[in-house]
Amino acid sequence: MRQNISLEEAQHLLLERATSPGECELSIGEALGRIVSRDVVAAQSLPSFDRSPLDGYALRACDTMSAQPTQPVTLWVIEEIPAGRAAAKTVTGGTAAKVLTGAPIPEGADVVVKQEDVFVDGNLIHVFQPLRARNNVVHIGENIKHGEMLAKQGTIVTAAIIGLLAEQGIKTLYVYEPIKAAIISTGDELVGLDEPLTLGKIYDSNRHTLQARCKELGIDPVLLANVPDCRAQIAARIEEGLAAADVVITTGGVSVGDYDLVKDAVETLGASILFWRVDIKPGSPMLAAVKDGKMIIGLSGNPVAAMITFDLLAVPLLKKMMGYNKYFYSRLQGTLVNGFHKASEQRRFLRAKLLTESGRLWIRLMGMQTNSALKSMAECNLFVDIPAGSGALAAGETVLAHVVGKIQDVDE
Amino acid sequence: MRQNISLEEAQHLLLERATSPGECELSIGEALGRIVSRDVVAAQSLPSFDRSPLDGYALRACDTMSAQPTQPVTLWVIEEIPAGRAAAKTVTGGTAAKVLTGAPIPEGADVVVKQEDVFVDGNLIHVFQPLRARNNVVHIGENIKHGEMLAKQGTIVTAAIIGLLAEQGIKTLYVYEPIKAAIISTGDELVGLDEPLTLGKIYDSNRHTLQARCKELGIDPVLLANVPDCRAQIAARIEEGLAAADVVITTGGVSVGDYDLVKDAVETLGASILFWRVDIKPGSPMLAAVKDGKMIIGLSGNPVAAMITFDLLAVPLLKKMMGYNKYFYSRLQGTLVNGFHKASEQRRFLRAKLLTESGRLWIRLMGMQTNSALKSMAECNLFVDIPAGSGALAAGETVLAHVVGKIQDVDE
Repeated sequence: MRQNISLEEAQHLLLERATSPGECELSIGEALGRIVSRDVVAAQSLPSFDRSPLDGYALRACDTMSAQPTQPVTLWVIEEIPAGRAAAKTVTGGTAAKVLTGAPIPEGADVVVKQEDVFVDGNLIHVFQPLRARNNVVHIGENIKHGEMLAKQGTIVTAAIIGLLAEQGIKTLYVYEPIKAAIISTGDELVGLDEPLTLGKIYDSNRHTLQARCKELGIDPVLLANVPDCRAQIAARIEEGLAAADVVITTGGVSVGDYDLVKDAVETLGASILFWRVDIKPGSPMLAAVKDGKMIIGLSGNPVAAMITFDLLAVPLLKKMMGYNKYFYSRLQGTLVNGFHKASEQRRFLRAKLLTESGRLWIRLMGMQTNSALKSMAECNLFVDIPAGSGALAAGETVLAHVVGKIQDVDE
Repeated sequence: MRQNISLEEAQHLLLERATSPGECELSIGEALGRIVSRDVVAAQSLPSFDRSPLDGYALRACDTMSAQPTQPVTLWVIEEIPAGRAAAKTVTGGTAAKVLTGAPIPEGADVVVKQEDVFVDGNLIHVFQPLRARNNVVHIGENIKHGEMLAKQGTIVTAAIIGLLAEQGIKTLYVYEPIKAAIISTGDELVGLDEPLTLGKIYDSNRHTLQARCKELGIDPVLLANVPDCRAQIAARIEEGLAAADVVITTGGVSVGDYDLVKDAVETLGASILFWRVDIKPGSPMLAAVKDGKMIIGLSGNPVAAMITFDLLAVPLLKKMMGYNKYFYSRLQGTLVNGFHKASEQRRFLRAKLLTESGRLWIRLMGMQTNSALKSMAECNLFVDIPAGSGALAAGETVLAHVVGKIQDVDE
């Protein structure tokens, strides 16, 4: 069992044991947000026929070489081709075909002139300038080439990807099966939302926060009943979790106190402990263990520490288990808008929010950085990564941050 | 009916007619991703009792004033208070109580000394330095004050908000009812995924793309059968949509050609047309109409134009109708990584992706900017807003972009 290891070592120990999900075939209408398990490439080039992007006349460019505003070329319109219908005739010298937006270009024609650029006189059109072949024609394969990647294994299915598949006539694709995570809160002090709150007790929020976090990720959360600080009960509940889910996540009871019994409980089960305590603040008291290939992650009972370590350690593991090919958070550099008055003996993660102004990235630290102030997580989308041994931070300093939340709602 | 209006005028015409959603009460476990319809404020300050953040001894700071490494102060430990239990005794001069992480501070005590900073000798502890009152105590109200905002009307319910409510013992909250959008594709050229593709036909992708886009937004999409270019059939289908949904969104048939019948169909229904054609590229051929207070939005049939105008015009309307208090996209300024060779006579939106490097925002334009290349949407999370009358764009120029997609997966 490793102790007091770095975040990166802990992540590595978890990730190297990530199990692989199953896969299933879904219709494209059901696949939004799922992870692609098999590459999908274009079966055909698109458009699959030369097509007009506008309403106009398809003709031969060479027929218009002598056209001038004062001496137009006159062509005979042999047919009208709406979108969705094939041309019946071939365009030969001196002829043109009316084409509507999306219509196929008839054989013989190599250019389309816009409707508003010609003069129509019954079955005749007058063209007033020479046209360049290929103009106003969307050519076969211009949008997508046969064999081009449409949906890459390990990426999430988006609306645009669904559209790309539909364009090809692809009805289904293979995606990974969802995974399940069991959630267990431990602690004598916890009461459920339906129980009375006596002095010294607190409502258990971790259960609800982690349930929501799992749902946000697309993971099926299995909520198990809370357990008091009792080794046998904790062990039994974890065993229940292992039977019901792919990963078991507990909160509370992982520190060094007499009532910190999760480590003992995990050992009782015969699980092998991968590590205990990670050298970060908040959240250092945590552990990871593995039993029969299934992971048990014990997080701090502190609401903020539980969320931060869930995000930094459990999320990459869960994403890899879900089939994502990118499971680490993106990181970015920005300038602090405000400072932080404490020195950081240990590596520290501060909750923060991204702002942008004039092409630069600014990072605002949340006001409350104490471990128990869950409010600091409410608007947080960045964890600022402060190296061990840093002094206080001043506004204007450049820091590195992990992008853990949605940052599309940047403040302007 | 206004014609060729600006994007902002079109948005305004839509937004001023946005209907308000109903509301319902949900348990916090079901509310993730929904929009808060009534402010929720803290009913109690948290913590609700002075609490120990660690394992240690609660005592009176004044008792330790004379403590020195060589001359420790000795205190008698009168009880042990685990988390979740109230103290039985009062700490008086010369006494201390063992407190575990999360335990309430007993009456009389005003400081906690860490377990590892004392020497334990049976029922006695030796303290080796003077302690400052209030140290290592999480005081009542330190995390949340009574009356503080927990969940604001018009914002989305996140995992952190659910945790904040659970901490308070709040079991339910009011959220807006979801809204419904009917989706109709029009065009003789369209075939469904189960139909054979003959020359001139294309698979309908808009239906699938817009369905997915609605789901991403949290809107219930009502998919109606496609209709050919026939005024009466289009009118009947729109009527069906109005009966089934809060908004009807069509694609195709909104240009100026002989087969562009959506405008006629809408007029047949007696709907009042708000505007036709918006002065942007791509997607200018579009219309909006209102019938009996319900909105009909007719988008271009072009897959990319349909997505862009859905995002720029329909999304703000839909978000307002869903109850969001922020319904416009955030915008940001960044530097182009690559150029765009065409001049822009009309205001133009280019598909792009956000990159960050060394605290600066970079914007990479997608390779294919033609209207029909849906692939350009696949990685797009920004629409670069190019003013009318702009020349070609060079790498290094600063541009303004609307954040339309997820940008947390920024490339490092």
